[in-house]
Amino acid sequence: MEKQKIMINGERLKNTVEAFADFGRTKNNGVTRLALSDEDIKVRKHFRSLCEELGMMVTWDDMGNMYATLEGIANDQPPVVIGSHLDSVEKGGRFDGVLGVLTGLEVVRTMVENGIKPQVPVVVANITNEEGARFEPSLMASGVISGRFNKSNMLKSTDKNGITFGEALRKSGYEGKEENRLKEASAFLELHIEQGPVLETESLQIGVVDCVVGMVCYELEVTGDSDHAGTTPMPLRKDALFAANNLISEIRQNMDKLDERLVYTIGRMNVSPNIHTVIPNKVVFSLEARHQDAETIKQVEEIIQTLHESSGKEKCKVKATKLWDRDTVWFDEKLVYSLERSAKTLGYPYKPMVSGAGHDAQFIATYIPSAMIFVPSVNGKSHAEDELTSWEDCEKGVNVILQTVLDLTTN
Amino acid sequence: MEKQKIMINGERLKNTVEAFADFGRTKNNGVTRLALSDEDIKVRKHFRSLCEELGMMVTWDDMGNMYATLEGIANDQPPVVIGSHLDSVEKGGRFDGVLGVLTGLEVVRTMVENGIKPQVPVVVANITNEEGARFEPSLMASGVISGRFNKSNMLKSTDKNGITFGEALRKSGYEGKEENRLKEASAFLELHIEQGPVLETESLQIGVVDCVVGMVCYELEVTGDSDHAGTTPMPLRKDALFAANNLISEIRQNMDKLDERLVYTIGRMNVSPNIHTVIPNKVVFSLEARHQDAETIKQVEEIIQTLHESSGKEKCKVKATKLWDRDTVWFDEKLVYSLERSAKTLGYPYKPMVSGAGHDAQFIATYIPSAMIFVPSVNGKSHAEDELTSWEDCEKGVNVILQTVLDLTTN
Repeated sequence: MEKQKIMINGERLKNTVEAFADFGRTKNNGVTRLALSDEDIKVRKHFRSLCEELGMMVTWDDMGNMYATLEGIANDQPPVVIGSHLDSVEKGGRFDGVLGVLTGLEVVRTMVENGIKPQVPVVVANITNEEGARFEPSLMASGVISGRFNKSNMLKSTDKNGITFGEALRKSGYEGKEENRLKEASAFLELHIEQGPVLETESLQIGVVDCVVGMVCYELEVTGDSDHAGTTPMPLRKDALFAANNLISEIRQNMDKLDERLVYTIGRMNVSPNIHTVIPNKVVFSLEARHQDAETIKQVEEIIQTLHESSGKEKCKVKATKLWDRDTVWFDEKLVYSLERSAKTLGYPYKPMVSGAGHDAQFIATYIPSAMIFVPSVNGKSHAEDELTSWEDCEKGVNVILQTVLDLTTN
Repeated sequence: MEKQKIMINGERLKNTVEAFADFGRTKNNGVTRLALSDEDIKVRKHFRSLCEELGMMVTWDDMGNMYATLEGIANDQPPVVIGSHLDSVEKGGRFDGVLGVLTGLEVVRTMVENGIKPQVPVVVANITNEEGARFEPSLMASGVISGRFNKSNMLKSTDKNGITFGEALRKSGYEGKEENRLKEASAFLELHIEQGPVLETESLQIGVVDCVVGMVCYELEVTGDSDHAGTTPMPLRKDALFAANNLISEIRQNMDKLDERLVYTIGRMNVSPNIHTVIPNKVVFSLEARHQDAETIKQVEEIIQTLHESSGKEKCKVKATKLWDRDTVWFDEKLVYSLERSAKTLGYPYKPMVSGAGHDAQFIATYIPSAMIFVPSVNGKSHAEDELTSWEDCEKGVNVILQTVLDLTTN
């Protein structure tokens, strides 16, 4: 049997993605399918029935994570898992997460229709509440099963209507047993949209992800005096906004000298009292930076730590508080190589990439060999109704996963 | 009679200011006395009774402006008016406005106790809703009686509870006749706290105000793209916050080359979507500038108009919208000179100043010869509970007004 000849059915994949988008489709052709919402519960049922039609056995664990298992020749061996998430953000897109789950479904469909029985079981996983859009934090259920988050705290997480995650889970019918959790596997493979513009900009179809980059997030608080905008001569002001503007210029100047792969963002800024006739006395802004190398993140922190020394001219005080950080998670080298080889075999232009966004695979990677591939996001958009990946790119991405699963599960 | 020898009673002034602060005094020794609130209605009654005790006749007009008149020798001649406002902002101070009204009361008290009958009537005026804190806009009633604002629009102005100014005025019992409005006068004199740090910084007691400076206010809107903070390489971003950072640096660089008396402020800034993990796609900020010379304001506008050309690097769009402007109001030269001469006669250190803040006198100046003096604000503070002017400075300021009124009304 020539493995290379077996390809997925692109038309079927497209139809399935569109059918899943009907669960929560918005007026502008996006999707709102918050974790454990009615739409999520309905899509889970649909997913389950499609898997059962293929002869898969569907179970779920105590966090509502669903596992559809295709039997292998040796069922006592650790499975190969293909997974992502079916939940979305409010007014999200048709591809983020769901494409990774349907990758698994399409891989199994292709294997079944080609009469391929894998050496080990193949599991398609739907991980609960990746987005954290209804119940914070994001990556909730992968965080729990990988031991990163405390389950009882997660159960108490509350949506905007005061409903806890625990209540919603019980009501959904998807509160299973802890013993059903994903425990061991030979591989966890996740296909995801890039959520960035790199592949499209470079006309590539596949990104093979080395790692999920580490990051650090600070809050900077600049304090001055809120005097009257009309009556305070410029030299007598302590203008927190002007001081913040100086700081941001300095941050940019210094950050831009670091490695070019560094990304950093000031996404949130609040000015007080925020009245046009009053000199601002306080500006608070976030500063987050992401890079794969711990050394570069350390340089970022050194820049932030020395900022307070440069606030002299505007006579304002600067306070930098570290909100959190996370280390880079490196994916399994062998799996990364295997994914690259599949892309090469299939003749798809690809490149090694890092993931700047967080994914369930980064937590699962702590106890199961894991890796990811990206497919292009048109205009780099995600978490938006106009999120788009061309059907050709979807198909190619799923073929890379299929090829890799065949490599891992057949002789 | 030597005019110079007649001085006000500083202790009485202090006691009166403190007694008035009891109407709405806050826990932190500030004052909340919004226009036509219960506290304002009570303080009006108190003011009225104190004036009537002095033999003054108290009337009010169709905007609730109160006029307490001390008869002169020639009662058919235009009066000399001393006025300001008794309303305050939420959690304001004990001095802003009320000190100008009580200046008038103390001047009349001093004249009466010294048996001085002025040549022309002396009027103490309390102008309604100077602050605009409950009913927008500020300077409401002076704006109406000077023909600047449309009265029927003002009556519809609504507070946060949905009560209109018209309803509140009727209910207050201070809706008088239009014919009672201040029509003609030989002088309108207003003493006010500086609301800025200049006099204190220069160790002066009196500022003689030449003008209320003109101003221009713009809104600047910077538009980029809100991409994912983790997945978008720096060169592919259209970061509206970084573009705004560039613009503000450029604004400051150019503004700082203009006349050193120019003041300009970016008081309000809103970032969208204002989430730390999302690159900002929109930043909107106000930019207001004040200067006495129209030429300088024109230079400011030229700087703003050319800003859009400098947004190239961040690939964002810049839109500048003029929200409003107002011309400089010059006070009556003879009155300004008269106030300076009084300060000089009394031996108080003074300087000519401009007013960067708005005052009722600027509207009244359009049809009545008007002028103002400032007394020092400790730390430049106003519209705050810790607003403070030393009792010595209050006393000196009122003596300057007394001296000027004596100059204008006695031989």
